[in-house]
Amino acid sequence: MTSKMLDKNRPDLVAEAHCDGPCGVYDPSSARIAAEAARSMTKKLLALEPPTPGDLQANASYHNTFSRYVAIKEEQADIAKRELIILWTDYFKPPHLKDYPDLHETFWKAAKLCSSVKVEVNQEHADELMAVIEKIHEIFWATKNRDVPWYVAS
Amino acid sequence: MTSKMLDKNRPDLVAEAHCDGPCGVYDPSSARIAAEAARSMTKKLLALEPPTPGDLQANASYHNTFSRYVAIKEEQADIAKRELIILWTDYFKPPHLKDYPDLHETFWKAAKLCSSVKVEVNQEHADELMAVIEKIHEIFWATKNRDVPWYVAS
Amino acid sequence: MTSKMLDKNRPDLVAEAHCDGPCGVYDPSSARIAAEAARSMTKKLLALEPPTPGDLQANASYHNTFSRYVAIKEEQADIAKRELIILWTDYFKPPHLKDYPDLHETFWKAAKLCSSVKVEVNQEHADELMAVIEKIHEIFWATKNRDVPWYVAS
Amino acid sequence: MTSKMLDKNRPDLVAEAHCDGPCGVYDPSSARIAAEAARSMTKKLLALEPPTPGDLQANASYHNTFSRYVAIKEEQADIAKRELIILWTDYFKPPHLKDYPDLHETFWKAAKLCSSVKVEVNQEHADELMAVIEKIHEIFWATKNRDVPWYVAS
Amino acid sequence: MTSKMLDKNRPDLVAEAHCDGPCGVYDPSSARIAAEAARSMTKKLLALEPPTPGDLQANASYHNTFSRYVAIKEEQADIAKRELIILWTDYFKPPHLKDYPDLHETFWKAAKLCSSVKVEVNQEHADELMAVIEKIHEIFWATKNRDVPWYVAS
Amino acid sequence: MTSKMLDKNRPDLVAEAHCDGPCGVYDPSSARIAAEAARSMTKKLLALEPPTPGDLQANASYHNTFSRYVAIKEEQADIAKRELIILWTDYFKPPHLKDYPDLHETFWKAAKLCSSVKVEVNQEHADELMAVIEKIHEIFWATKNRDVPWYVAS
Repeated sequence: MTSKMLDKNRPDLVAEAHCDGPCGVYDPSSARIAAEAARSMTKKLLALEPPTPGDLQANASYHNTFSRYVAIKEEQADIAKRELIILWTDYFKPPHLKDYPDLHETFWKAAKLCSSVKVEVNQEHADELMAVIEKIHEIFWATKNRDVPWYVAS
Repeated sequence: MTSKMLDKNRPDLVAEAHCDGPCGVYDPSSARIAAEAARSMTKKLLALEPPTPGDLQANASYHNTFSRYVAIKEEQADIAKRELIILWTDYFKPPHLKDYPDLHETFWKAAKLCSSVKVEVNQEHADELMAVIEKIHEIFWATKNRDVPWYVAS
Repeated sequence: MTSKMLDKNRPDLVAEAHCDGPCGVYDPSSARIAAEAARSMTKKLLALEPPTPGDLQANASYHNTFSRYVAIKEEQADIAKRELIILWTDYFKPPHLKDYPDLHETFWKAAKLCSSVKVEVNQEHADELMAVIEKIHEIFWATKNRDVPWYVAS
Repeated sequence: MTSKMLDKNRPDLVAEAHCDGPCGVYDPSSARIAAEAARSMTKKLLALEPPTPGDLQANASYHNTFSRYVAIKEEQADIAKRELIILWTDYFKPPHLKDYPDLHETFWKAAKLCSSVKVEVNQEHADELMAVIEKIHEIFWATKNRDVPWYVAS
Repeated sequence: MTSKMLDKNRPDLVAEAHCDGPCGVYDPSSARIAAEAARSMTKKLLALEPPTPGDLQANASYHNTFSRYVAIKEEQADIAKRELIILWTDYFKPPHLKDYPDLHETFWKAAKLCSSVKVEVNQEHADELMAVIEKIHEIFWATKNRDVPWYVAS
Repeated sequence: MTSKMLDKNRPDLVAEAHCDGPCGVYDPSSARIAAEAARSMTKKLLALEPPTPGDLQANASYHNTFSRYVAIKEEQADIAKRELIILWTDYFKPPHLKDYPDLHETFWKAAKLCSSVKVEVNQEHADELMAVIEKIHEIFWATKNRDVPWYVAS
């Protein structure tokens, strides 16, 4: 029996990171990068100007760009949601709940914001999603006693 | 502005199903079917007999089958987890928490069982996963005031 | 040599379910849920009202929603098709053809209806797809001598 | 209404290629390349020699290689199956059945061979799959009145 | 230690095809078929006529078709890019650079053309992509001393 | 015509980040996290001790864990490769080549190391991959005139 198996039988004693790999490599940056991309797409969608009626090439370019941005927003918001859920279901363990009693609510809200970013073209919700991911970043690194500074790529 | 957008601005007033489609089609059967498949693979893996040493064809068949069953168990447990998370993040809304205060814990446990089924070859955990999905099936249809009987395909 | 291998060499003698897992877990519900979602998207697309010209936010919301619904319709119709094909290629075996001589035609028609649901925004074809899946549901459970009632989630 | 929509309402009159894109680009080479890869993996799996007991690095290399080859065989056989099904469900239309009355059986057998190549490590079935794909290649290009020579990449 | 491992330690001595499978099955047809599909979608998008204002069904059909074609163009251009990158990173080896010193530039340009085909609705760039893939086809088969004629499926 | 389209026609004048989204959000962390996970799996695979012959449960646990780790190593090395290729094909533009004339070689080597990490169970190559990604991290942020410190999550 591998040591991995033993660990699973004593989950309460094991507060260290074990993804369901378990590779032990967690980093909220994965969710942050995807959420940044979804927010960028939201912003660009809101800035897209509809074409002059009758200009067929401009019409094709507009709808091509619009449709692609929506698809990328959808994909990236979905990746953000998936990466957050990995942290919630695989990294965080029962002992963490004592220090962060609103952990479930935080992740539930974050996941629902990912859905809002998909469903809407809403800059405010895209910003709120980034804010809750920053909060999760702080919680995450605090549980590992590491000081990793928050930054955005864009 | 579409009616969809209006709904999202009043989430507390809208306890009906709205996936992030929103297609409004939720059914815990999706999670149940995947969990059944993962349980079936667990059972078959435990029943596989290692080949007689020296029989090269039997050795190849054994490892081929073993490796495929592990991959299918992994995939199906992952689908079960994803389908459960869709219910938790998209279908269930704040008003449901009043009726089911342990909703978050139920889904957290269910998601962690999906990981156990992946990580281990453990019949007991595969059975527990089926049990928690049956519990979620009961909660889900109760919130819709429908009486859909539980069944398994295998 | 595993028992699995033996089975494959005598396919005519083995009319029980063996997916290419083989996990033995088949359920037409997977195709039904996806087809319901595609039908729901078709209905919602037909009900979407174009925005008043000049209202940029409404224009963005409209095209965002339209584009997402098309993508979800596409995805779900594709899943329905894939799930049907799994039944046709993995579950059904030569002996079944004696009892259901139009099996190939039934699945061919069902697969082509999935394509129609993708290509068009056509309520009638979405309804026909549901009808053929209900027919397949009846055939499937009859071959297993089980009485599983048909229901829809939406 | 687009011309595409009109075509779908007269399927019997339209024997030209229309995928569910419809991009009109079909080529059995896609299935052939994947089936070649699956056959190559089968051959390499049968040629892999188990390591000398006690040599840990050789043991790790052996199982790493074995497990990867099985996964690639699975993936490629699945792609071959999917590409064949696209031809069957999207390219071929009712008028083709008159010229090729065993079309359904040919594709059913081909799809089931894809499953066999996944489930087994069986050189004979991998060769049979290539043979049926060559047959489909001949039928396909004959329906288009084109003479495209068959070749293999490996 | 498998023969595979030995090969990897002497990459300069091994100019034969070894994908990271390694299945040894490379064929630029995979990239060509996908690029053809992306070019076909580009052409069809440019030919789509916007609906008469006020005709709701025609409006739905137009946007449904437009959105789907964009998504298929995106997907196929992405597949073309991925298949080209497999050739560049897995098939081509340092010795090939001596015979084809502009190999890196050729693939870089080809990959960037795939992105252009995604981002734009541009027939000229879609044609250029096909031209560079034909060039890669010639280089590829020349390195294998085989004479495989170039053809297109559409 | 959107400003996006104009940019693509003057690629040499546009050295700012434009993914093929274009979302403008690039971060080598995506490649780094995946490479870390692949390296972690390599290390754990080398540390796995084969089971005592005859202990069936231990045998099943060993092969289950081995097979899963190989699959995760494969997946993560593939993601690392894909993320690196996105930087090479989408972020980097001709003007960057003047400052970094070995850019193509650097990415080619990095991509080939990803393949090595997949094909082998080789700690040294996993470490080399991390080193080349750190080098790419330095180049990347230098082109953006930003000082983002390198760190690892594990």
